[in-house]
Amino acid sequence: MIFCFFGDIIISMLHDVAIIGGAGGGLTAAIYTSRKKLSTILIAKQIGGQCVLTDDIENYPGFEKISGIELSDKMRKQAEKYGVEIREGVIVESIEKKPDSFLIKTKGGENIEAKAVIVATGKNPRRLNVPGEKEFENKGVVFCSICDAPLFGGKDVVVAGGGNSGLHTALDLSNYANNIYILEAGPKIIGEEILQERLMKSGKVKFFTDARIIEIKGGNFVEKIIYEDKTTGETKEVSAQGIFISAGWTPATSFLNGLVDLNEGGEIIIDPKTNKTSVNGIFAAGDCTDVKYKQIIIAAGEGAKAALSAYDYLTSNI
Amino acid sequence: MIFCFFGDIIISMLHDVAIIGGAGGGLTAAIYTSRKKLSTILIAKQIGGQCVLTDDIENYPGFEKISGIELSDKMRKQAEKYGVEIREGVIVESIEKKPDSFLIKTKGGENIEAKAVIVATGKNPRRLNVPGEKEFENKGVVFCSICDAPLFGGKDVVVAGGGNSGLHTALDLSNYANNIYILEAGPKIIGEEILQERLMKSGKVKFFTDARIIEIKGGNFVEKIIYEDKTTGETKEVSAQGIFISAGWTPATSFLNGLVDLNEGGEIIIDPKTNKTSVNGIFAAGDCTDVKYKQIIIAAGEGAKAALSAYDYLTSNI
Repeated sequence: MIFCFFGDIIISMLHDVAIIGGAGGGLTAAIYTSRKKLSTILIAKQIGGQCVLTDDIENYPGFEKISGIELSDKMRKQAEKYGVEIREGVIVESIEKKPDSFLIKTKGGENIEAKAVIVATGKNPRRLNVPGEKEFENKGVVFCSICDAPLFGGKDVVVAGGGNSGLHTALDLSNYANNIYILEAGPKIIGEEILQERLMKSGKVKFFTDARIIEIKGGNFVEKIIYEDKTTGETKEVSAQGIFISAGWTPATSFLNGLVDLNEGGEIIIDPKTNKTSVNGIFAAGDCTDVKYKQIIIAAGEGAKAALSAYDYLTSNI
Repeated sequence: MIFCFFGDIIISMLHDVAIIGGAGGGLTAAIYTSRKKLSTILIAKQIGGQCVLTDDIENYPGFEKISGIELSDKMRKQAEKYGVEIREGVIVESIEKKPDSFLIKTKGGENIEAKAVIVATGKNPRRLNVPGEKEFENKGVVFCSICDAPLFGGKDVVVAGGGNSGLHTALDLSNYANNIYILEAGPKIIGEEILQERLMKSGKVKFFTDARIIEIKGGNFVEKIIYEDKTTGETKEVSAQGIFISAGWTPATSFLNGLVDLNEGGEIIIDPKTNKTSVNGIFAAGDCTDVKYKQIIIAAGEGAKAALSAYDYLTSNI
């Protein structure tokens, strides 16, 4: 927030648009609002969001292969070129509706005011919530394969989850680990076929479906993973020195605290044509919304739509 | 189409997906379907579509500045890497629904068959339909600033249209032309503010709103543009040696010939969540649809959505 001092009075700057979230959706929205000459502040816990967890993005059109960090860095620079004020490391606590604007309160105690808000906060990794998960965190229980895969050289590792993120994790691990066991609670591996094929070729991976993890056990570090074989009801175990949790995501929307309508899964309900939420002046884009498919390129497109809608909202209000 | 000969019988290959259109939406859809291991053929009049008309794309996230040709070339290579069969220079004449597939007939007399179709044909430049427009085509009346701006060095030129494409055209021209007159039929210039600002700085541009062009006159070449000043009803003229038509676009959907529902503007009506059209098995994405905002990044996101929807359709049918 920018303060202007006039004697004793502190006047805080009223931005045209505040964007919450710094991954593909938020950064694209920022490029679009700033090119429309709307004064834009972007508030993010971390630029890149969940993208930075991905080592090799191969399905963002225009780049055969790019790391999440590199792609979001390019988008950040593009937004900054048009004058977007980026506030990284800031966590939003709440949003309050005022007569003609919105007041965003941060965990650091700051107030940021804007005429329109775009929420693009993405989603956070879901925990298994099983015994041992918290106890062994960073003692074999990990969430980020890019950060931690190299630590498991020559070891046996479980990947919890057979969706795209689980398969990416297993691919990262295949460069280091000895045996990789993918445990998927559902009846089939749902990650992309091309990733499954590559994993097959590595010769290191075993897939287990209908395998619901029920406990993580060990001494000082993880030693074994206990799971229920849902087809037989039996309790089984896998010896492993590590477990990567890739069990899906939950939308990062709790800070909205009832302000806008969410669906049962906690996703922001949007009008899919305009990215409007249930509150006039608040727009949303990407993985935190009920958009059907969660992909970086889709979130980016949605960010552009939300930005152009916010522009229409602001200019029709003037 | 690939033919397999068994004695006298010609069996044509049935593709999983045929994508019609080779710009951002179609190429992104191709990257997505092929990564899903669906056999994919992409049919396009020209790879890049209307993108190739744009010299500097600055609002595609990830690239600060890239030409339309370069961006679509990157996307093409990315799609080809995953085995997409690209058929450039092929114009689709019609699509026919068969019991379990679609038959695509081309102007070259070829038949291409696929289980699902994604239409991403974009839009074509709209003509003014005024006297002189056809007569002086390529004698001062032009449609592509990238191709033709350099021909107007030191000359006075009219740009017909004050939307983004008109302003981009004027910017291209500002490197060459002497005076540039932007004639917009509506009451205001609707192109992006940042482009308007840059044009102001060039000192070469005059904006005319409520200016409806009614005739293009000249001898061997264009000499003047006649327009109605809608605020007064007067007929006025501008001396110019060229006119760039940037008067909007019409969706390239006429080949569908009643097969899927279109809106009054000729755009394909889609379910905005799934990109389904009114015909089961035909999906659509980007500027040929009723998506509210027409932008490359949005078309790309829509292409990914259409591809994932087509995948769901095909796999739930199996």
